[in-house]
Amino acid sequence: MSNINPASFLGGNKGAWKVTRMETITGASLAPVPYVDMQPSHFPQSSLESVAWVLRGSNVHVRYTDRKEVAELTARQESLNRPEATCAALIPIRKSAQWWQMPQDERRTVFEEESRHISMSMAYLPAIARRLYQCRELGEPFDFLTWFEFAPAHANLFNELVVKLWATREWQFVEREVDIRLLHQG
Amino acid sequence: MSNINPASFLGGNKGAWKVTRMETITGASLAPVPYVDMQPSHFPQSSLESVAWVLRGSNVHVRYTDRKEVAELTARQESLNRPEATCAALIPIRKSAQWWQMPQDERRTVFEEESRHISMSMAYLPAIARRLYQCRELGEPFDFLTWFEFAPAHANLFNELVVKLWATREWQFVEREVDIRLLHQG
Repeated sequence: MSNINPASFLGGNKGAWKVTRMETITGASLAPVPYVDMQPSHFPQSSLESVAWVLRGSNVHVRYTDRKEVAELTARQESLNRPEATCAALIPIRKSAQWWQMPQDERRTVFEEESRHISMSMAYLPAIARRLYQCRELGEPFDFLTWFEFAPAHANLFNELVVKLWATREWQFVEREVDIRLLHQG
Repeated sequence: MSNINPASFLGGNKGAWKVTRMETITGASLAPVPYVDMQPSHFPQSSLESVAWVLRGSNVHVRYTDRKEVAELTARQESLNRPEATCAALIPIRKSAQWWQMPQDERRTVFEEESRHISMSMAYLPAIARRLYQCRELGEPFDFLTWFEFAPAHANLFNELVVKLWATREWQFVEREVDIRLLHQG
């Protein structure tokens, strides 16, 4: 009905992605699981006994990106599901009440003018493919689910990006973050 | 868990608000109902046989408003549930794919610099109280549910605001709109 991409990430005993590492960066952890599955719906079909948690989100319109940045991203970025991109990361993030109380212009300033979230990430394209799922509006425990796909050869490059983002002013507003690394079960 | 205000609006045979008028402005209509009820949850408790439709949304952070505008709105606006504000309007709106494909800066330009959505609406404060619920991320049939409360004496003032918004460039992107007027059952 709506022109959005919904997703549910199911952590449990089965799934297309095997968990290789799961690290709590900030705040409350998530129950450790051996597998993660993704279903393109907010109402996943699954035997619940095999699932420890479900994280839901919607990939929708951009929130901060301007015309020039969209053009540059579109020219550079790769799509998901590349055969060589057998590594993935699922990074659920929740930002503080202070972040959400800021008006749009101040959030944009922290996000890009101060933290260079878009321009700094641009250097990691096309190696790292990315999709952002919004979940704050769904009343979920996280605000975003960020999903990344890359080839095994680019795992260190991805680690470098993560560490750079941690150092930004934007990340001072992150109050919960879990970093889940995955390997596709071919 | 999240710091959001969820809501479900239930159109049916009972509820705190009696429908006085229901008009399809653009696109597909909603089934006519005699009453609307609001419950502060995405999972409303109700006997389903009395409900023709349920519209869900989340009142969250601002999307276009800047610091100066937030300050002015906060100084002027009234809260919901004023005893004299026995009239309400529920206006579900859906915008086109073309709107959502625009980057943030272009949507802001149409919304405020061209359409004066914020500054023009400011003139109707404090008479008209307002709360916006986002629902695009929920996969709902509408993108927003706009809720307004005002005294009977301000009903014509509210009509004036609605007609002014229809005339804006922003409204050229509205592809579905239903205008439901309500009276509180005291």
